[in-house]
Amino acid sequence: QKLKIGLIPADGIGREVIPAARATLEALGSDIPKLEFVDLEAGFELFATSGEALPEDTVEALKECDCALFGAVSSPIKKVTGYSSPIVGLRKKLDLYANVRPVVSVPKDPSAKPNIDLVVVRENTECLYIKHETMTRTEHGREARATRLITERASRRIGKMAFEIALKRPRKLVTIIHKSNVLSVTDGLFRESIHSVKRLEEDGRFDSITLEEQIVDSAVYRLIREPQIYDVMVAPNLYGDILSDAAAALVGSLGLVPSINAGDDFVMGEPVHGSAPDIAGREIANPLAAIRSAALMLRHMGYGKGADRIDNAVNEVIREEQVLTPDLGGKSKTHEVLAEVLRKM
Amino acid sequence: QKLKIGLIPADGIGREVIPAARATLEALGSDIPKLEFVDLEAGFELFATSGEALPEDTVEALKECDCALFGAVSSPIKKVTGYSSPIVGLRKKLDLYANVRPVVSVPKDPSAKPNIDLVVVRENTECLYIKHETMTRTEHGREARATRLITERASRRIGKMAFEIALKRPRKLVTIIHKSNVLSVTDGLFRESIHSVKRLEEDGRFDSITLEEQIVDSAVYRLIREPQIYDVMVAPNLYGDILSDAAAALVGSLGLVPSINAGDDFVMGEPVHGSAPDIAGREIANPLAAIRSAALMLRHMGYGKGADRIDNAVNEVIREEQVLTPDLGGKSKTHEVLAEVLRKM
Ligand SMILES: CC(C)[C@H](C(=O)O)[C@@H](O)C(=O)O
Ligand SMILES: CC(C)[C@H](C(=O)O)[C@@H](O)C(=O)O
Repeated sequence: QKLKIGLIPADGIGREVIPAARATLEALGSDIPKLEFVDLEAGFELFATSGEALPEDTVEALKECDCALFGAVSSPIKKVTGYSSPIVGLRKKLDLYANVRPVVSVPKDPSAKPNIDLVVVRENTECLYIKHETMTRTEHGREARATRLITERASRRIGKMAFEIALKRPRKLVTIIHKSNVLSVTDGLFRESIHSVKRLEEDGRFDSITLEEQIVDSAVYRLIREPQIYDVMVAPNLYGDILSDAAAALVGSLGLVPSINAGDDFVMGEPVHGSAPDIAGREIANPLAAIRSAALMLRHMGYGKGADRIDNAVNEVIREEQVLTPDLGGKSKTHEVLAEVLRKM
Repeated sequence: QKLKIGLIPADGIGREVIPAARATLEALGSDIPKLEFVDLEAGFELFATSGEALPEDTVEALKECDCALFGAVSSPIKKVTGYSSPIVGLRKKLDLYANVRPVVSVPKDPSAKPNIDLVVVRENTECLYIKHETMTRTEHGREARATRLITERASRRIGKMAFEIALKRPRKLVTIIHKSNVLSVTDGLFRESIHSVKRLEEDGRFDSITLEEQIVDSAVYRLIREPQIYDVMVAPNLYGDILSDAAAALVGSLGLVPSINAGDDFVMGEPVHGSAPDIAGREIANPLAAIRSAALMLRHMGYGKGADRIDNAVNEVIREEQVLTPDLGGKSKTHEVLAEVLRKM
């Protein structure tokens, strides 16, 4: 048995943190199958030189892989003709419908309970991310419209994913995030579809789950004021995007938060942070989010032992506060943090 | 000269905080014109008894007023046939296109600079709040769609409002919040329209303004990590809704944050908090957000002296920490906090 892993560092610090994640996977030795890495291209920098942000070759090669690690993409603020975000494209093309983002604070004392220990389960294929936009000219000036799509099918499968994740956690609490007080049809369908998954599951599989719901604005408020009330948060695409950045801020740095983009038969690890052009090339990017994304990917594939080895090492490095990058108040370089993780492993 | 003020307490704690706001206005005496109050109805509780959430009478009566104070509405989570949020309706019907939400922390030492001192200027009439939603049935289940509308006209006027507000502040910094890396057409138009207001203003009125921009997810992240970087944030409707709740969490309580809904010739004060059914009727609602909303409304109409008297009294009460409601860690009742504000005035 062999594990074939696609590597797409993409832009900016993606090129610094993905090699670090790879190194931790290689250090696992016999805890996981033999590894084969495939280097693949995508990103805004690639677009600038080749005119393509997500080459068809990359998508095809990924289909031959068992899983992948993605770095980060730079996003032009102004519209660039012909450019479309490759990460949004990949999620769609590989039908990676769930973006799973665990956000956990690491307590000083390893026996203490973390203050924040939640997972954002973000729907990853629809909402405003379908990018159906139009522009018209009227006598009062231009008018732009975007379509927000919420389907029963996608809402059910993301609900199911959230329940499966919650089942493995002690509190088994799922909070649906929506804005059905304004969007009664679209967000109404989202919340209703998720309720129905719990209600309709025939074998009573989800009976032990507590299902709550909250309006997105007050959910963000309460996330900041009392993050302990959350266990698994399930949200449409855009709310999930915002919620996971908010949660990341609460545990100290985006440089700590991993994610996976998961479909029914493919998984792609991806740090939640962006390409951070302001610090790219300076060797001070925090590799921990990418390293944890590799662990999360392994865990999702059933290699819990390998994932634990990586996660425990990362937690120890954070707890000791000796070797950290500047985003966490440290003075260390990317490669020094990686070396420290490898040492603890 | 006389000031005719519509009062719409609406639901839940709205009925407890609006009378408090009224009392502070009455206490101003000769600092403002003679007051006349008009009691008006709207809300979910009204809908439950009468079938109407926003009676046409209320809208018509408001048109005869100089300004208004709105309490809060309860939002049913499930779709209720025939019900539509009266606050969203009022903003639309009176064309109150700007929702202005100042969020300021009160330092212990009155001579110190507040750590957080920003204003969220939220577009109040379009985005997903136009509520154009449809539902279709397909072989894969139901599909719901909502339209997100962004017009050049509304984006320009909210941009202009943000600039006017920034001109009166020492830093004169405006940050446009958007997600144009995904919504290149709609949010592209939003950011571009606001840039054009600054560029095109003929008399150079806005030359002293610094204009920046940020993607909404990282804006929320940075708002939590380094709120001092913000002065005036201008955002489409939904991002503004979320951002202002996040900012409120950072200054300690939604019970502190006021807003006005402002159009070209009408202004309506409204606390940012909701109707809080869980604490309604217990006399522990924090009246400070509603009281500050009354002050903000006065300031917007040019009665700065009256507004200052209210705001200074509120700040003193917060600073002294002697008479506060439970949301701020105190043990006082709504009427005790009001009495303390009146004493300081
Ligand atoms: C880069 C951007 C398109 C992306 C998103 O909005 O999904 C990013 O913010 C993320 O969270 O992965
Ligand atoms: C009650 C709700 C419709 C409203 C909104 O979303 O605008 C509220 O959250 C607000 O911020 O005033």
